[in-house]
Amino acid sequence: MRIMKEKEQVVEWMSRRIGERTVMLPGMPGIAAWASIVGTKEGDGPYGGKFDRVIPDELNGENSFEAAERSMLESAVKICAQHADCALTEVQMLLAGDLLNQIISAGFAARNLQIPFYGLYGACSTMSESLSIGSMLTDGGYADRLICATCSHFCTAERQYRAPLELGNQRTPTAQWTVTGAGAVMLCSGAAAAACPVVLTHTTCGRVIDLGISDANNMGAAMAPAAADTIAAHFRDTERNSGDYDMIVTGDLGRFGRTLLLKLLEEREIDVRPEKLFDCGSEIFSPEQDTHCGGSGCGCAASMLCAHILPELASGRLSRILFMATGALLSPTTTMQGESIPGVAHAVVMESRRRNG
Amino acid sequence: MRIMKEKEQVVEWMSRRIGERTVMLPGMPGIAAWASIVGTKEGDGPYGGKFDRVIPDELNGENSFEAAERSMLESAVKICAQHADCALTEVQMLLAGDLLNQIISAGFAARNLQIPFYGLYGACSTMSESLSIGSMLTDGGYADRLICATCSHFCTAERQYRAPLELGNQRTPTAQWTVTGAGAVMLCSGAAAAACPVVLTHTTCGRVIDLGISDANNMGAAMAPAAADTIAAHFRDTERNSGDYDMIVTGDLGRFGRTLLLKLLEEREIDVRPEKLFDCGSEIFSPEQDTHCGGSGCGCAASMLCAHILPELASGRLSRILFMATGALLSPTTTMQGESIPGVAHAVVMESRRRNG
Repeated sequence: MRIMKEKEQVVEWMSRRIGERTVMLPGMPGIAAWASIVGTKEGDGPYGGKFDRVIPDELNGENSFEAAERSMLESAVKICAQHADCALTEVQMLLAGDLLNQIISAGFAARNLQIPFYGLYGACSTMSESLSIGSMLTDGGYADRLICATCSHFCTAERQYRAPLELGNQRTPTAQWTVTGAGAVMLCSGAAAAACPVVLTHTTCGRVIDLGISDANNMGAAMAPAAADTIAAHFRDTERNSGDYDMIVTGDLGRFGRTLLLKLLEEREIDVRPEKLFDCGSEIFSPEQDTHCGGSGCGCAASMLCAHILPELASGRLSRILFMATGALLSPTTTMQGESIPGVAHAVVMESRRRNG
Repeated sequence: MRIMKEKEQVVEWMSRRIGERTVMLPGMPGIAAWASIVGTKEGDGPYGGKFDRVIPDELNGENSFEAAERSMLESAVKICAQHADCALTEVQMLLAGDLLNQIISAGFAARNLQIPFYGLYGACSTMSESLSIGSMLTDGGYADRLICATCSHFCTAERQYRAPLELGNQRTPTAQWTVTGAGAVMLCSGAAAAACPVVLTHTTCGRVIDLGISDANNMGAAMAPAAADTIAAHFRDTERNSGDYDMIVTGDLGRFGRTLLLKLLEEREIDVRPEKLFDCGSEIFSPEQDTHCGGSGCGCAASMLCAHILPELASGRLSRILFMATGALLSPTTTMQGESIPGVAHAVVMESRRRNG
């Protein structure tokens, strides 16, 4: 075919891999825009004023919690596109997923948005999975403009993974509260990336790690080993250490999981000072909100990234961070069949443009 | 960082997009190896002799159908790596998904295989989704070697999506039989790709299309519109027509869905002769096997691709095909909440090396 023949001559193939599990993004894809939307409890939390929108109640005008969750994802994508001053028809791909069976929030949102759609599932790691894949697709010129998005909803996740909401059972001390929220991030490439306030420079793909935790109310402990594994791989591959980052942002380890991660890193002799480790789940609610170990769900890392982390990078208050959401790859079926809980964590490096000028 | 600084100078960013939804793959990633494994019913079908392995019974030596499904995916990946004469540790990414809630087959297989893992969900379109994303990641140099894989199992899908197996209820005329099977395809890039018998040249990302079908026993009708939409986009973007392909391979439209797709293409004035449209679901079982409209499930397109289509390409009996598995993005929850069934289809172009020499 003509197009191929012409192009073939100008392309010189080059490996982007460094080390075992990391790739660099020499095209420096940019983050052009972002948007977040959360529920009322999240709106009442310490970051309440920073979200783009707080929905009025759990149903957000819909007939079911599932439809409400999907409406939040749709809104986040639309607001994100508006922030970039771009029509939905100009967005070439939507990389999205969520916690619900068959990722129905993402699939049905994609039906309404009509953006070409790749569905992802990485449990609560989905935001960093979408950014990891999305960063490569924009860096390589496979998309000029795409949106990465995820969402979760307390009322849908609780009844799917744990127990009917009406049961009102006692929560264990290590339990976390599924965040009602969504986040959407637009990546762009080429000339458009040069104008973006934040760029992506590397991504590290996670392995599935399982140290045998089988308590479905202790997700933090199940996910911390995957986080430690990915941080170790990232530092090894890039020959960097925590001194190269202003912040290491995890998704929803929660207060207990965050402590465990620090312990696991110490055991591996990887120095990460506690004040550098920002866990979205530990931060999104105040201790007075009685969520025990903090927030969880894909929407936790996604909404906090868009409400707090990206603005800090855009303004230059943060120079370079490692963003790494973690996911627990269990299902009620595997738990009932006596399986332990595998975790996964993908990482992306984000840099502020303000840093270099 | 040093590595970035050096590389920045040699990289010239170039868009790989042609038309609205298609990208070209000028690096021509290669398909180095493939493997398939199926259940006994599939082994008794017309392609029975072509699969790499047929499991002895539904449990394949495991304690549950879910564990059996996962063991098939694991085996397919291992056999695929063996065929490429490559250790699992040399595979840099696993792009995989399945039909089960929280894609537990893929997640737990990735735990055992220890290959860095991106989880995907595209229902029965997952094989082409993984090849679509995988083709871009290898073309761009983000992976030297990765495996795309999916699986499904009659006994797990039936009880999750429809009814307990013990119920033994009557199946409707448009029903399809979920294939017990798995397929794995290794993609490679750069110099290694030049030695591969089959290469990937383009991929077209699907949109989620829903024409209002709400019968969960009529997946073919729900998915055919998405297939028509992707074929139309692919032909428009590449300025090709069906004359440029020896075969258009769909995943599991089944006999009824395949007929509908031909009708929808005719309405759009897209000429595809019936004999060029090979639907894996319509072919995997013989009419005597009483599966009504044929096979379905992620494992259908995956196992037929690896058992029949790729060998035909490798030998040069097929020169160029469009592979496009379709998925129905419903869940039992959305069906119970009165939603119709959205479909999606991703396409990849595969070419035989024998063709050009």
